[in-house]
Amino acid sequence: MNNGEKQVLVLAGEKNMVFLDKAKNLKTDFIKEETYPESIIEVKKNEKYFQGWKIEKKEDIEKLNQKSFAKGDSIILDFGTHQVGYLNLSIKTAGSPPDAPLRFKLTFGEMPCEIGEDFADYDGWLSSSWLQEEIKTIDVLPTEITLPRRYAFRYLQLEVIDTSSKYEVVFDKISCTSVTTADQNKVKKLPEAVSENLKEIDKVANRTLKNCMQSVFEDGPKRDRRLWLGDLRLQALANYHTFENYDLVKRCLYLFAALPLENGEVAANLFMEPEPQPDDTMLYDYSLFFAVTLYDYYLYSNDLKTLEELWPTAKRQIELGLERLNNNYLVEDSKNWWAFIDWTEGLNKQASAQAILIYSLKRGVKIAEELNELELADYYRKKIKLTSQAAHKYLWDENKKIFISGKEKQTSWASQIWMVLAGILDKKESNNLLNRIMNYSEALKITTPYMYHHLVEAFIKSDNKEKGLEILNYYWGAMIDDGADCFWELYDPEDKSFSPYGSNLINSYCHAWSCTPSYFIRKYYPDYEF
Amino acid sequence: MNNGEKQVLVLAGEKNMVFLDKAKNLKTDFIKEETYPESIIEVKKNEKYFQGWKIEKKEDIEKLNQKSFAKGDSIILDFGTHQVGYLNLSIKTAGSPPDAPLRFKLTFGEMPCEIGEDFADYDGWLSSSWLQEEIKTIDVLPTEITLPRRYAFRYLQLEVIDTSSKYEVVFDKISCTSVTTADQNKVKKLPEAVSENLKEIDKVANRTLKNCMQSVFEDGPKRDRRLWLGDLRLQALANYHTFENYDLVKRCLYLFAALPLENGEVAANLFMEPEPQPDDTMLYDYSLFFAVTLYDYYLYSNDLKTLEELWPTAKRQIELGLERLNNNYLVEDSKNWWAFIDWTEGLNKQASAQAILIYSLKRGVKIAEELNELELADYYRKKIKLTSQAAHKYLWDENKKIFISGKEKQTSWASQIWMVLAGILDKKESNNLLNRIMNYSEALKITTPYMYHHLVEAFIKSDNKEKGLEILNYYWGAMIDDGADCFWELYDPEDKSFSPYGSNLINSYCHAWSCTPSYFIRKYYPDYEF
Repeated sequence: MNNGEKQVLVLAGEKNMVFLDKAKNLKTDFIKEETYPESIIEVKKNEKYFQGWKIEKKEDIEKLNQKSFAKGDSIILDFGTHQVGYLNLSIKTAGSPPDAPLRFKLTFGEMPCEIGEDFADYDGWLSSSWLQEEIKTIDVLPTEITLPRRYAFRYLQLEVIDTSSKYEVVFDKISCTSVTTADQNKVKKLPEAVSENLKEIDKVANRTLKNCMQSVFEDGPKRDRRLWLGDLRLQALANYHTFENYDLVKRCLYLFAALPLENGEVAANLFMEPEPQPDDTMLYDYSLFFAVTLYDYYLYSNDLKTLEELWPTAKRQIELGLERLNNNYLVEDSKNWWAFIDWTEGLNKQASAQAILIYSLKRGVKIAEELNELELADYYRKKIKLTSQAAHKYLWDENKKIFISGKEKQTSWASQIWMVLAGILDKKESNNLLNRIMNYSEALKITTPYMYHHLVEAFIKSDNKEKGLEILNYYWGAMIDDGADCFWELYDPEDKSFSPYGSNLINSYCHAWSCTPSYFIRKYYPDYEF
Repeated sequence: MNNGEKQVLVLAGEKNMVFLDKAKNLKTDFIKEETYPESIIEVKKNEKYFQGWKIEKKEDIEKLNQKSFAKGDSIILDFGTHQVGYLNLSIKTAGSPPDAPLRFKLTFGEMPCEIGEDFADYDGWLSSSWLQEEIKTIDVLPTEITLPRRYAFRYLQLEVIDTSSKYEVVFDKISCTSVTTADQNKVKKLPEAVSENLKEIDKVANRTLKNCMQSVFEDGPKRDRRLWLGDLRLQALANYHTFENYDLVKRCLYLFAALPLENGEVAANLFMEPEPQPDDTMLYDYSLFFAVTLYDYYLYSNDLKTLEELWPTAKRQIELGLERLNNNYLVEDSKNWWAFIDWTEGLNKQASAQAILIYSLKRGVKIAEELNELELADYYRKKIKLTSQAAHKYLWDENKKIFISGKEKQTSWASQIWMVLAGILDKKESNNLLNRIMNYSEALKITTPYMYHHLVEAFIKSDNKEKGLEILNYYWGAMIDDGADCFWELYDPEDKSFSPYGSNLINSYCHAWSCTPSYFIRKYYPDYEF
C-alpha cells in the first residue's frame, strides 16, 4: 500500500546498530533463473475482458529472431507468466553497417492494460515514474545488454523509435534473469483431494509471494518495492506454509526494530537503499502488527532468542497503541491520525483500530507469558477487558446489531471483521455478525485482497470454514478468471477498474498482501472434504 | 557529411591485418578535463537572432544547488562553450525519503535551437536517434551518476518528469568530463599583429578541431562521429599547424588502407565500433583524396616509411579514378555514381570530379618521384595532360568563359574552384575565373564551410591572398557573429536555416571540415600586414 499524501514530518529515531548488523547478516542469497518469452502477441481492445483488454497470440516465438525492425516497427512479447528480474537483449543488425544509433522504447506490463493504454495519458496521483518504460539509445551494434533496472512484468513491448534508412535491427535473443529469495523446492505438493480450482489459486498465490520475496519481503515488485509491516505480516504467514524462509522474516523484523521513529514507534515501512532507513510514515494498525508478526514468527520458528531481543520493540508499540485511548478506553478518532485498515473510500478507522489494539494486546499477553513477564501479562489483560467493554458500550449499535465507527457511526465490513478477529464475541455471534454485515446494504464494503484475507480469517475463526472457503474461491478465483497469474493489490469484482490512485495503470498486479490463499489452503484446509 | 540514402551494396574487401594492427597501436591517449556549467539561462524565441533563438542569462550558476525540482520543473544550463564528453550528475533529495523513482529528461544542445525546438516535431531524413536526449529513471537517491553515452553540447536542459508528492530533487553537482586527443599546449600563440577578429576565428577553429579529435578524426562529435576521408584531409591540414598530432593522422591513414572495399577502393568513411570496418559507401572525390592526404602527411611529417607502405593503396585510388574516364578523357557522368563535392542542391559533379582527378594525379606525380617510380610519374603526367586538355575542350564554355558540368552544361562555383585548384589555368586566369563566377548570377553557389575552404584556397593559389582573407573573415566571421563557438557543418549566410537533411536540429554544429581557418591563418597569413 502507499498512502501517497504529504504527512506531518516524522523524524527517525536512533538506529540500533546491533539489530541492523544482524539484519544485514541475514541477507539471503538470490535464486536466479533464466526465462524466455513464450509467444508474440497482440493486445486488443475488447470490453468483454478484464479492464477491456484481450491478449491474442499472433505468432510463434521462433519467429522473433527472423524479424527485422525499422523505424516505427514494434512487437509485443508474452513471457508466459509474471517475471521479476533483469532483461537481457542481444541485438543484431540487417542491412548496411549502422550509420546512426538505435533508439528504442521498452514498455513492461504486468497486465495487458499497461501495454494497451498510453502511459502519456496517465494522471493518477502516484508518481508516473512507477510506469515501467525505458528509452534506450544504442551507439554500437551488434550488442548484448542487460538493463540495469529490475522490472516486474509478463508482457514486453519493443518499439523501434529510429534506426536509419540504411539498417534495421534484429532482436536476436531476449531473456529475463528472474530473481527471488524464495526456494520453490521447499513448497510441498498439495494433497490430491484439493480441488483443481484451489490448486490453481495456491499456485498463483505462491508465485505472488515468490516474486515479492527479494532482499526483503516487498509489498509489490513493480511498486512500491518496499518493506511494509502490514504486508510483511501476511507474507510471513504464507511463507511459513510454503517457502519456509524464516531468515527473511527474521531479517525484516530486525530491520523494523533497528530503525524506529523518534518516539520508538516502528515505521509503517522501510526503504532499503541506499541504506536502510524508515519512511516518515506511521500507521496505527501497522505499528501494532509488529507485536503480532513477532508472535507469529515465534510460533512457527520457536526462535526464543529473537522473541526476547525484539520484545522491547513490540512492547513499545503496544504502549503507544494504548496511549491513544481516551478516558472511555476508546481509540481516539481525529483527522491528523492515520490507520490503514483498507482502501475503501470514506472508511472510518476507529472501530477497526480499537479491535486491532485488542487483537495485538492478546498476542502481547502470550509473549509476556512466554517470557515470564506475568505482571505485564496481567496489565495487558486488564486493558483487553477495558477496551473490549468500551467497544461493546460505545461502538455497538444495539438496533442494527452491528459495530459502528466514528462520530458518524459508520457501519462497515471492516469494523465487524476486526471485532471478530479481536475475539470479543463468541464464535456463533461472530458468524452471525459477519453474515449480518454482508447482507446489510448500507454498509461500506471492502476493496482489497488484504481485507478479503481478514474476512476469510474471520469466518474461519467463527468456525465457518465453509464460508471462508467459499469467499476464497469466489474472490481469488475470480481474479484468475480475469487473467491473474499473480494476485493483485486491488480487486473489486463489482468495479474492475478500481484504483485508489486514480488509474489502474499504476496498480500493482503482483502484490504481497494477496498471497495468503496458500496460507489458508495449507493451514486450514489440508484435510477438508472437497 | 552523411549521404543518408540507400546505396548499392558495396562489399568490404580483405582486411590488411598488419595495417590494422599498426593503426590500433597508434591509438593516442585521451586528454580529459572537468568542465562545469557557467550559468543558468533561458532560450527565447527572437527572430533577430540566428535561427530565431536568443540566449539570455537568467541566474548565477551558484543558485543551481539551492534549487529543488518537483514534477514538471526544468532548468537550462550553459557550459560556456562547446563540450564533448561525459556528463556527471550528483543528485540529492529534499523532503521525505524518496518513495518513488526519479524520472527526468536530459536534452543536450550544441545550439539554442536544440533546446528551443521540440525534438518530437523533427521530421528530417537523418535518423532522429542523433537528437541528443535521454530519459533516466533513478531508483536510489541520493546518487552520483555518469551517463554512459558521450555527448556534444554547450547547453543542457534538465526536466523533471516526476518525483512524487513527498520529495523533490536537487542537482547538487553537474560537470562534464570533456575528452579529446588534441593537446592544447602544442598550439602556438598567433603573432600580435594578427587582427582580433582573426584571432577569434582561429580560436573557434581550434576548438572545432580539438572537439573532433577523438580516437580518430571524427567528422562531427554529435553526428556522425565517424572517420570520413573528406573531413580527415582538411582536419589533418589544420592539425599540422596547431595540435601536431601526427600519430592520429597516421592512424587514420592506416585504418583506411587496412579496410578497403572489394575492388581496393578506400571507403568514403569507416566505423570504429564494435570493430573498425568500412561503410559500404564510396565517393569518387573522397577516394582520390587518400593520395592527397597521404602526400600532405608526408610533406609535414617526412615519414617516408608510411609513404612507402601506403603508396600502393593511394596508387589504387588513382587507378580507379582513371578507370572512370571515357574515350574523351572525361570523368563519365551517370546517375548511379557518387561524388560528394558539396551539398548544393542539384549540383552536377562532373567538372569538379574531373578537376579532382587532375589534382590528385599531380600529388601522385610527386609521390612517384619521391619514391623513384619515374615511369609511373611519366604515366601520370600524360594523364594529367589528357584530362586537362579534355577539361578545356569539353568543359569550357568559351562564351561565358566558365567551366561547365554535365549534359545540362551547368555552371557552378564548385566547378571553377576545383579547376583552379587542379591548376589547369595560370594564376591570373584563375583569379579572373573565380571573380567571374562569383559575379555570375546564374551560377550555383556553394553551401558548406567545406567548399568555402576550397574557395579560399583557390584564391590563395591564384595569388589573391587578400580576397582569400576577405572571404575567410566574411564567412567564418559571420558564423561567430551568429553565435558559433565551434564552426558548423553547414552555413549559408543567405539562408540561415539551411539544412540538407530537412531540419536544422540535426545539423552538426562542431564539424571537422569547418576547422581550416587555423590552417589558413597560420600557414598563409603569419606575416600578413593586417
